Amino acid sequence: MSGPAPAVAAVRVAVRRALADVPRGSTVLVACSGGADSLALAAGLAWEARSDGSWRAGAVVVDHGLLPGSHDVARDAAATCAALGLAPVRVVRVEVGAAGGPEAAARAARYAALEAVAEELDAAAVLLGHTLDDQAETVLLALARGSGERSLAGMRPVRGRLRRPLLALRRTDTEAACAAQGLAPWHDPGNGRGPVVAAGDLPLRSRVRSEVLPVLEAVLGPGVAQALARTADALADATEAVDAAAADLLAAAALPGPAGAPPAEVVLDVVPLAAAPAAVRRRALHDAAVRSGCPAGALARVQVLAVEALVTAWRGQGPVHLPGGRVASRACGRLYLGLPGAVGDGGDARPHAQGTPGPRPDEHDDQHDDRE
Amino acid sequence: MSGPAPAVAAVRVAVRRALADVPRGSTVLVACSGGADSLALAAGLAWEARSDGSWRAGAVVVDHGLLPGSHDVARDAAATCAALGLAPVRVVRVEVGAAGGPEAAARAARYAALEAVAEELDAAAVLLGHTLDDQAETVLLALARGSGERSLAGMRPVRGRLRRPLLALRRTDTEAACAAQGLAPWHDPGNGRGPVVAAGDLPLRSRVRSEVLPVLEAVLGPGVAQALARTADALADATEAVDAAAADLLAAAALPGPAGAPPAEVVLDVVPLAAAPAAVRRRALHDAAVRSGCPAGALARVQVLAVEALVTAWRGQGPVHLPGGRVASRACGRLYLGLPGAVGDGGDARPHAQGTPGPRPDEHDDQHDDRE
Repeated sequence: MSGPAPAVAAVRVAVRRALADVPRGSTVLVACSGGADSLALAAGLAWEARSDGSWRAGAVVVDHGLLPGSHDVARDAAATCAALGLAPVRVVRVEVGAAGGPEAAARAARYAALEAVAEELDAAAVLLGHTLDDQAETVLLALARGSGERSLAGMRPVRGRLRRPLLALRRTDTEAACAAQGLAPWHDPGNGRGPVVAAGDLPLRSRVRSEVLPVLEAVLGPGVAQALARTADALADATEAVDAAAADLLAAAALPGPAGAPPAEVVLDVVPLAAAPAAVRRRALHDAAVRSGCPAGALARVQVLAVEALVTAWRGQGPVHLPGGRVASRACGRLYLGLPGAVGDGGDARPHAQGTPGPRPDEHDDQHDDRE
Repeated sequence: MSGPAPAVAAVRVAVRRALADVPRGSTVLVACSGGADSLALAAGLAWEARSDGSWRAGAVVVDHGLLPGSHDVARDAAATCAALGLAPVRVVRVEVGAAGGPEAAARAARYAALEAVAEELDAAAVLLGHTLDDQAETVLLALARGSGERSLAGMRPVRGRLRRPLLALRRTDTEAACAAQGLAPWHDPGNGRGPVVAAGDLPLRSRVRSEVLPVLEAVLGPGVAQALARTADALADATEAVDAAAADLLAAAALPGPAGAPPAEVVLDVVPLAAAPAAVRRRALHDAAVRSGCPAGALARVQVLAVEALVTAWRGQGPVHLPGGRVASRACGRLYLGLPGAVGDGGDARPHAQGTPGPRPDEHDDQHDDRE
């Protein structure tokens, strides 16, 4: 008797590796849209759970309700998952908002639904069907936005309980795995491979898939998608290194806050900040702002650069206003991040402040002269 | 009287900023091919040197001898530079080898010639005409090769005495600057804008310019080139941070070499190496290999990963052979990099080696069992 088709075996091996550290006996879910990627993944998980017996393997089908017939698609996907032996199989209908555009809103609603079901079922892992092709598209989209090395690092194989076993496989592998197992995947008309939508109406990711990547491969060679995925991995490593150095820097620069300051007040010595590499300093200042109460997602790069200027281009400038009503200011060689009433009020140039270790609580005042 | 055309002013401002820290009275050269970018730059340098009087401004024209008529193109470019008031103007004919392909070989010959002239004339700076468009192409090419964050960081504004004042300007700006000053740039038939070469014969960079970037801009929007350039800057910052952390790590992990070892022997404690972020560890191991005598350019990522496995995936594997005849091996919790006869010979599993601080010089031997 011959073994499974190569693509089927590749998916199963990928699932096994991704679950190597998941405790035996725990629940593992697969997020299944009915498309080739997640259907192949669902089949791989069902096989591994059955042959190994270690995990309780279920499925979650998210119905975004964005396209006519989405309810039928979700019902069919759920039926296929159940036929594969997955249990429980949950169908979750979500409300997609508008924040950040249709694709971002759908993604946010999807991940929230997956987290909610995982929480309810106490799942140890939720498997997602993203392939190397998805990773390449993500990198190109991030690149086109110039959004920096952080988003350029793409999707990680593990983030919290989310796991992406198929990041090293191609979309053609998942299609082959479905075909070999007699599974009929649903073709999303918005994914750039279906015939029913005019090119100009496709979402950006689909146009990257159907228009940009083919040209890149034609000009630069067939290894472009793999190269983009390798780039993402290298950048993830670099980002991790910057984050670690930033945490060390924050620890080295941390000073006790002034008496009476609220707990969110962050006080930093500017000397180690000024001596650090720019990327590390910026990350440390970003993290300090978040620690002082800024909502992380609301902090823009230009705001971090303005805080950095308090360190590296100090000419007595006023406080920097940050999201969440926080303020960053500099006084006496220290950087203060917190609520306006609490931050250091400078006074380095004031005669009475000479030689004092830092601002006194009674000097706190938003209308300060922080020239140094 | 109206001022100069906006593009002319932009080039002049860019030259002024790029030379802000170049000592007064020193010689500044511009590398001029006769194309729009370097011609606009030559005109900008000539203007700034004349109006400011601070620098002796000359030009270097490199004749690659690759195309029929290259001698005439070089002669015309030199005449234009001289007419702009630049002096001296040198034409250098170079021999282009074959190493790394025609584009890399031409680049190597060009930079060697520029360095030689700069050395001879004791120039403080050599200006290159690379624009934001060149930067975007460089990032895309690096991305397509998956060559990691280091080459993805693109061209830096300053590297040694090379300076690139125009990295924030578009190619259309330099073309407008030439037109406004009555300068007729030469159109390189290999640059993707000339009519004389079939698309399939164009070098890769030219095809990126003429085929890939237009599709990217059409799909993702007109800001793609700027976004790619921003990405390069962010990655340069991240790379700088990784390099700084790697230097710290190497210093922390360095141990004295065994008695009798040649000076190129590098001995490292594996404990701090194992604890470092992957990107920092890999860079430190790369630098350690170079310090032990490996030619930097010859060291492949896969070799660095094999050395890393001695640290992070130790199962008693044998020595790793590196370019330049160097060898990396592990023994007694130490990593040795150097010539084969000099590196640690392991013996962690040998009874007599138990508890010894490290391999003794008389144990050095390439045929060792380095199981730990």
